Amino acid sequence: MPNPISSINNSSVGVVSAQQAFFDEPLTLKSGAVLGQYELAYETYGTLNAQRNNAVLVCHALNASHHVAGYYADKPEEVGWWDNMIGPGKPLDTSRFFVLGVNNLGGCHGSTGPQSINPRTGLPWGGDFPLMTVEDWVNAQARLADRLGIECFAAVMGGSLGGMQCLQWSLSYPQRTLHALVIACAPNLSAQNIAFNEVARQAILTDPDFNEGNYDAHGVKPRRGLRVARMVGHITYLSDDEMANKFGRHLKQEKENYNFDADFEIESYLRYQGDKFARYFDANTYLRITKALDYFDPALAYGGNLALALAPARAAFLVISFSTDWRFAPERSRQIVQALLKNNRDVTYAEIDAPHGHDAFLLEDARYHLLVSAYFERIDRQISP
Amino acid sequence: MPNPISSINNSSVGVVSAQQAFFDEPLTLKSGAVLGQYELAYETYGTLNAQRNNAVLVCHALNASHHVAGYYADKPEEVGWWDNMIGPGKPLDTSRFFVLGVNNLGGCHGSTGPQSINPRTGLPWGGDFPLMTVEDWVNAQARLADRLGIECFAAVMGGSLGGMQCLQWSLSYPQRTLHALVIACAPNLSAQNIAFNEVARQAILTDPDFNEGNYDAHGVKPRRGLRVARMVGHITYLSDDEMANKFGRHLKQEKENYNFDADFEIESYLRYQGDKFARYFDANTYLRITKALDYFDPALAYGGNLALALAPARAAFLVISFSTDWRFAPERSRQIVQALLKNNRDVTYAEIDAPHGHDAFLLEDARYHLLVSAYFERIDRQISP
Repeated sequence: MPNPISSINNSSVGVVSAQQAFFDEPLTLKSGAVLGQYELAYETYGTLNAQRNNAVLVCHALNASHHVAGYYADKPEEVGWWDNMIGPGKPLDTSRFFVLGVNNLGGCHGSTGPQSINPRTGLPWGGDFPLMTVEDWVNAQARLADRLGIECFAAVMGGSLGGMQCLQWSLSYPQRTLHALVIACAPNLSAQNIAFNEVARQAILTDPDFNEGNYDAHGVKPRRGLRVARMVGHITYLSDDEMANKFGRHLKQEKENYNFDADFEIESYLRYQGDKFARYFDANTYLRITKALDYFDPALAYGGNLALALAPARAAFLVISFSTDWRFAPERSRQIVQALLKNNRDVTYAEIDAPHGHDAFLLEDARYHLLVSAYFERIDRQISP
Repeated sequence: MPNPISSINNSSVGVVSAQQAFFDEPLTLKSGAVLGQYELAYETYGTLNAQRNNAVLVCHALNASHHVAGYYADKPEEVGWWDNMIGPGKPLDTSRFFVLGVNNLGGCHGSTGPQSINPRTGLPWGGDFPLMTVEDWVNAQARLADRLGIECFAAVMGGSLGGMQCLQWSLSYPQRTLHALVIACAPNLSAQNIAFNEVARQAILTDPDFNEGNYDAHGVKPRRGLRVARMVGHITYLSDDEMANKFGRHLKQEKENYNFDADFEIESYLRYQGDKFARYFDANTYLRITKALDYFDPALAYGGNLALALAPARAAFLVISFSTDWRFAPERSRQIVQALLKNNRDVTYAEIDAPHGHDAFLLEDARYHLLVSAYFERIDRQISP
């Protein structure tokens, strides 16, 4: 396994590079659609040990990717999205664990997705790319694990939508999931969560440049819709208090403009975030990821009984929530914990009193990181010979 | 004063009709712009007594109008937006009080607004219509009160943005405001509130049919943007719990579609609300109303000290909030109450434990209506000879 570490300091995995894995065994999706062949982009950090039992899969959420830690030699500013969590001596310590990050199918960062060529037509998939589910992603990740010779993950770890993948790993592959770290997550989306996703989707779907998802063939991008979608999403990532602390009612200039330029700093911030996102992210991918979020609901097949749904799980769990997360409130994490306890699972639960809202799972917080660190030490002791 | 009551039952004011008042005395707006002439659409219910001291001004919020109670002879289905609150024997009893509803300046229901003809050009104002503030609305309402011979309102009453107008009445015209009923309100918008307004505005402003507000001249309407704006607004009017109770994760069909049709009932509901709104409401008005909300901040001129800002008020206050209102949470109402108490104002405060979120102020709730009813009985005793 190549281990592209060339640290500049002992807390970064240093220079990393992405790899590609090609699969030509067809993958049947939950929708019934079949992907005849596909590629997955991934990165690894650390070394798979001789027992092949120290692998940790890190699952990404909405707009992230396989680039979890370190940086690229030609783009040193592009630091992995969970670099504060993963590296030598960090909570997920790459000197002990072999870390795997995968860009999910349908993504826009290197794995097969709507921007890829549809081998049947020789043109980009665009709007024809099938809808994905969390279960589909997990199945694709499992095939990559097969390829890498990983029979059982020491841990599967993720926040938000990444946490849903961890839950699904414990259900789809109970024997391959020793621990699941389910962070800032929920057992399914609430009506309000779906509502926000639907607003984002409608902004994109009704952008005149959307062209039923085949915008690339028309030489345009539905950037206006994607921009609004990101703006509304962004509001739900921050807590009300965090927004008040960061922006409050601060005016950009001394006086009100009395026009539709940005009067308040919060307006500029959202516009900036929306513009930035609309430049690099693919609208078709965004639509599909929000749908995967909406569809995730392991309890659905069990009449809404989450405890029944989680019965197949064999993993031990670390569940973490953040007090000011109103997107996936602590109450939602407690539902997961209670359902696991009903199944006599080994569960550690922590509710971190952090002011940052949903985004807290991505931020550096001493208590949060100490907790994850201690949990991985426990895993390390368990898997060490 | 015409009193267009023709009740079909004793709890409705019955058939009503709108009236127009034309003003040619220029109105200088807070922005510095001057409206040379303008019309206000209004309705009245009940009879102004001989002492002219039983008038109640009802101020409307975002998408409502002067049509507060009763119905139109030719459109019996168009019942006033606060008909459950106002009528003979209702909490605001039109057999005792003379009720006035006014469509605010810049509106799209009959008062001068962006769809009106700009006398300088002979064309619709469109994007050139000036931005309005709560202070401007109150000043225009005061001129209408002059016209109707109302020197002092027994009460000024409103919810949400309507509540802001009540607060402003107590500051701009302390001697003309005997009581102010400030419901589901806040002393200003939070960063999160502004953020949601900004998303709504950007959806409209970036709609290719917007044409800098001059869409009517181009024979189009920015309906896509207005639709998304309404959808995002609607989420903030309902509580998370209310959405869960009303819609939960109910699928429209038995199975997921695996496309972008509405899978969940909440999606259909939002699309329906968005479509309906985009058909009848004017985008330029919507933009201006959200800006008036953002700008309202009586404490700004007092270094953020709300108690100082409210010092000029002479009214007695009834302040009401609703426990599950996350748009204008009870905490925001308590800030108003505390600032008023610091000024030794006569304040009654109630926090109603209602599940409906911000929309609760429009709904029938026995405790809420009894409270308002009792408060108006007190006013009635006070003004009776």
